[in-house]
Amino acid sequence: MNSEEKRMKIIETGAALIHEKGFNDTGLKEILDIVGIPKGSFYYFFNSKTDFGLQVIEHFSGFFSGMAKKMLRTGEGSILERMESLFIFFEEYFENRNFTGGCPIGNLAQEMGCHDDQFAERLDLIFANMSNGIYHFLLEAEKAGEISQDKVSRDMSDFILNSWEGTIMRMKVQRNLDLLQSWRKYICRKLLPVNNS
Amino acid sequence: MNSEEKRMKIIETGAALIHEKGFNDTGLKEILDIVGIPKGSFYYFFNSKTDFGLQVIEHFSGFFSGMAKKMLRTGEGSILERMESLFIFFEEYFENRNFTGGCPIGNLAQEMGCHDDQFAERLDLIFANMSNGIYHFLLEAEKAGEISQDKVSRDMSDFILNSWEGTIMRMKVQRNLDLLQSWRKYICRKLLPVNNS
Repeated sequence: MNSEEKRMKIIETGAALIHEKGFNDTGLKEILDIVGIPKGSFYYFFNSKTDFGLQVIEHFSGFFSGMAKKMLRTGEGSILERMESLFIFFEEYFENRNFTGGCPIGNLAQEMGCHDDQFAERLDLIFANMSNGIYHFLLEAEKAGEISQDKVSRDMSDFILNSWEGTIMRMKVQRNLDLLQSWRKYICRKLLPVNNS
Repeated sequence: MNSEEKRMKIIETGAALIHEKGFNDTGLKEILDIVGIPKGSFYYFFNSKTDFGLQVIEHFSGFFSGMAKKMLRTGEGSILERMESLFIFFEEYFENRNFTGGCPIGNLAQEMGCHDDQFAERLDLIFANMSNGIYHFLLEAEKAGEISQDKVSRDMSDFILNSWEGTIMRMKVQRNLDLLQSWRKYICRKLLPVNNS
């Protein structure tokens, strides 16, 4: 492994453990043992565990936004259908994980939001970017005549994002897709479409 | 303190610490030191830390449902106005806590949902009860002519609950009431009222 491959391996390994167990319960030793590098190497790449955590957040955010952009921009069907396909993709993702893990960004917000200013600031920004992405997608859907103007607002995009996050959280205790599927149908087939406004 | 007072003191102390730090990061020793009782007394009241956690969940749930019932049944104004007052009450509660802590039920779902079957089952039931309470309140509002029939469904009450939970989660990283206030106005003044359907 070259230096960048090593850094990525540490981040990917840490990301998987943090997604499973949370940030505080993931020990550096555990990550280093799996990757097979000494502690010194870790501090060559990261200033601190917090710095590492922030880079893991970027990793999660990059995975999500890359997938979202790909599916929303190059997917098939109308704009709302592509939006629905994105949500179905994540339902399948959660089902493959047996409904565990949930949203890593949401988990970290819940775990670290009140305890670490740097985490809070970064996560707040990532949520804002996600909401902004949804907002611009709603604008496109409005231009295409799929939803009406009164459905397009910053409040609406925040509302879609936050309700998705809350539904994913409840999936973790309900351990099935029922709530996520109802949520998706409500958003994509009832709340947003112009025919039902 | 008599026996029941002692049990309540342990639960209230533990609840405050769990709300602040999460379940795993709250040590029994810390609770016992604050309450000033020996470990043996703890196991007189609780079979295990998990059993204790489940009783703390009941405590949180009782606080929430007691407050909700009181405000929704005996409050002033129309049914939707009383619903809005309840949400404003919790906004003030979060503001007084400087936006920390969030929803203890949501926190525990996020932290424990994938890791402990007993927690998951109990939290799932509490969310279902909360959603059921909202559903019956929507039915009342429909009867009173405040919202239209097509707004009243189990999906809608889940949607209101889950979107509230997700918004509270984001409040923890944004550290202000902006999202909760927009959410409340959207639900109570735009989405539900019959005039705007």
